[in-house]
Amino acid sequence: MKEQLLELLEKKEFLHIRELLLEMNDVNIAEVLEELDTNNQLVIFRILPKDTAVLVFSYLSTDTQEKIIQAITDKEVKTLIDELYFDDMIDLLEEMPANIVKKILRNVSEEERPLVNQFLRYPENSAGSLMTIEYVDLKRDITVKDALLKIKRTGLEKETIYTCYVIDQNRKLEGIVSLRELVVSNDELLISDIMTTDVVYVNTHDDQEEIANLFKKYGFLALPVVDTEKRLVGIITFDDIINVIEEESTEDIYKMAAIVPSEESYIDSGVLHLAKNRITWLLFLMVSATFTGYIIRNYEATLSSEVILASFIPMLMDTAGNAGSQASTLIIRGLSLGEVKIKDFFKIIFKEFRVSLIVGVILSSINLIRIMIIDKTSFSIALTVALSLYITIIFAKIFGGMLPIIASKLKLDPAIMASPLITTIVDAISLLVYFQLASLILGI
Amino acid sequence: MKEQLLELLEKKEFLHIRELLLEMNDVNIAEVLEELDTNNQLVIFRILPKDTAVLVFSYLSTDTQEKIIQAITDKEVKTLIDELYFDDMIDLLEEMPANIVKKILRNVSEEERPLVNQFLRYPENSAGSLMTIEYVDLKRDITVKDALLKIKRTGLEKETIYTCYVIDQNRKLEGIVSLRELVVSNDELLISDIMTTDVVYVNTHDDQEEIANLFKKYGFLALPVVDTEKRLVGIITFDDIINVIEEESTEDIYKMAAIVPSEESYIDSGVLHLAKNRITWLLFLMVSATFTGYIIRNYEATLSSEVILASFIPMLMDTAGNAGSQASTLIIRGLSLGEVKIKDFFKIIFKEFRVSLIVGVILSSINLIRIMIIDKTSFSIALTVALSLYITIIFAKIFGGMLPIIASKLKLDPAIMASPLITTIVDAISLLVYFQLASLILGI
Repeated sequence: MKEQLLELLEKKEFLHIRELLLEMNDVNIAEVLEELDTNNQLVIFRILPKDTAVLVFSYLSTDTQEKIIQAITDKEVKTLIDELYFDDMIDLLEEMPANIVKKILRNVSEEERPLVNQFLRYPENSAGSLMTIEYVDLKRDITVKDALLKIKRTGLEKETIYTCYVIDQNRKLEGIVSLRELVVSNDELLISDIMTTDVVYVNTHDDQEEIANLFKKYGFLALPVVDTEKRLVGIITFDDIINVIEEESTEDIYKMAAIVPSEESYIDSGVLHLAKNRITWLLFLMVSATFTGYIIRNYEATLSSEVILASFIPMLMDTAGNAGSQASTLIIRGLSLGEVKIKDFFKIIFKEFRVSLIVGVILSSINLIRIMIIDKTSFSIALTVALSLYITIIFAKIFGGMLPIIASKLKLDPAIMASPLITTIVDAISLLVYFQLASLILGI
Repeated sequence: MKEQLLELLEKKEFLHIRELLLEMNDVNIAEVLEELDTNNQLVIFRILPKDTAVLVFSYLSTDTQEKIIQAITDKEVKTLIDELYFDDMIDLLEEMPANIVKKILRNVSEEERPLVNQFLRYPENSAGSLMTIEYVDLKRDITVKDALLKIKRTGLEKETIYTCYVIDQNRKLEGIVSLRELVVSNDELLISDIMTTDVVYVNTHDDQEEIANLFKKYGFLALPVVDTEKRLVGIITFDDIINVIEEESTEDIYKMAAIVPSEESYIDSGVLHLAKNRITWLLFLMVSATFTGYIIRNYEATLSSEVILASFIPMLMDTAGNAGSQASTLIIRGLSLGEVKIKDFFKIIFKEFRVSLIVGVILSSINLIRIMIIDKTSFSIALTVALSLYITIIFAKIFGGMLPIIASKLKLDPAIMASPLITTIVDAISLLVYFQLASLILGI
């Protein structure tokens, strides 16, 4: 594709290029564009019909968008932002450097400027920052036929026409009607006859995670966004929500690996940026692990008289850490999917306790046998290790189950209670148990 | 809501109940139903108009669905499955116990039975198992007006009418046309004039993860599914894909915490089931960690002469483990989002190497100073620990970056190379480096 395009560009066969591209999906055109240099990108951007060019533009990477805006004239910028969906324009303004933002803003029409400023003020990750204003609104007292005519006239400029919003003269949301209902209904019926009044809506300041949960629960194509007086101010469509769902999962996964979340992809991230997002937690966890070291120092005498005890430390620490992370991961994910609630606290503790009894007995008996047969230590050492493992696993599972819920209760993100932090906490517990038992059983 | 309903049920005010429920969203009706006992569930299920009852049924939990089918007559089962969307019926058959499946299957019509059997044979997580057969198909030579009339007639039974599929007489997929295009186009145009022929489609055996990626990339409402001869056999709609996206993330998160993935929610899972999903990896990792123990045994002499060395083991192991998991998590997530490719192998190693240099120098200098000031050890011990930490972090980051790519290259799931496995591997490396350096620097 790229080669063919370059050849045609070389020969200046612009009509042919246009024809070729118009058969392609906009997303695919954007993909091909990304591979060309800025000059050719501009040529193609100008060859395409205006409406296609604008759609293709909205699928380009931030870098390419920046280069194109830098290169085109003010008049072209004006056309571009007039044609862009409103939410795509806001996204653009949020992502571009200051000089580009200036170039865009001076081409926004007088009337639209207050709206643009209002949208830029919505908090990141709120309904306001996700919504768009290109929706179909209808009045309750028009007929299905008139509604379809209105859609026919204005439908191409709307982000979606599949859900239409019924509002009163004060723009208050009264109901919704789907295009499906309009199409299958009798032409002479009124909108008020067929609209649904039990509408699920969100407020401009609602968080994107809650909104995503509504989409998942109801399977909606779009959700209306209202202000504090229930006036319709915008809509959110499912395609934006698919990104939100994935972003939220990625954020959780990063936090669970002690990485400060970032929206930049790994490949595009600079080394310093990556290092910065990792160092804070590494540092914090390293200092925490130091305290575990002090436990060992406290028992130096015990260790000196039975140096072999040291050789079981990695197995004890790792197994405890893994057992704890399994529990905390299940609870953290359950919380963010809404399957686990804070009120399940005691249920979870009891469940983890029972799981740890089963898991613990298997792991520690295997260990007991293995140590006696392969390591050929005394029975009391094998017993010390096996018992420590059992007790530690019980602690690990219960802590792993509890801590995410406690974090959630304290309005902290449960995801910080994942593997790394749990491991550090459980390591300390496992060594304490281990050396206490060693003193007790081995009498040292 | 529940109280009000119970009261009305008590008073047998069925018409009132029906009225009340019909104002609610089907998902919400299902939610209320879940809280009632089976008898009342049945009463309400029978009060509702048939089409609503069927939709509500499809939102119920598997348990409640089972109870209802058990309780209703064969005739009612027949109506239910006739009205259910085909993909919901297949889901039902896949989830119900054998006696219920039998009750359902004997009520499937003769003509539909081969189709049901065919759908049940599609591999889990394939396009075939996700798709439904209720779509709108059009012929290329009819007018927009006739197409709209056809949709008006049949639209209510279709899972979606917003994307229509153009097929030839052999059911080969020729193009798609959206309801938006139909509604805004001139009535006299032919479908072939307005249809898009560059159609993105999937095959019945394509994996759901790839399909989800197509939805994300293009923002489609629905995707056509074709057989090996490009004949249209079904469609997949975005609401099913939202579940797939979340399922895939959950699966990754579980695997990354060394848990065998399960589709059951934590709260609904039994203790034995939870224990079973955790024990395999715990056991494997425990045995692996044993080898790390042997490294310590090998250096027992070194440790005996400087017991204080043991007290730095937890800090070294934990920090190395965390540094490695950070890298592997970023790569694993990047791979599943398609942002990182196998061909980036060397780029990643180089990037992780540079990140580890920065992160390593910060962490190990802090350690050097801390050990000298707070622990008051000799400089050579502090140096041993700090240097070991530095080298280990470099290893950890590079291994963390490499292993998921290698797994992916070997057609293994990269997610298994997450925190637990990396930690175990990196632990062994960190101890080897530590004791080697100790022998060297401390001369023991």
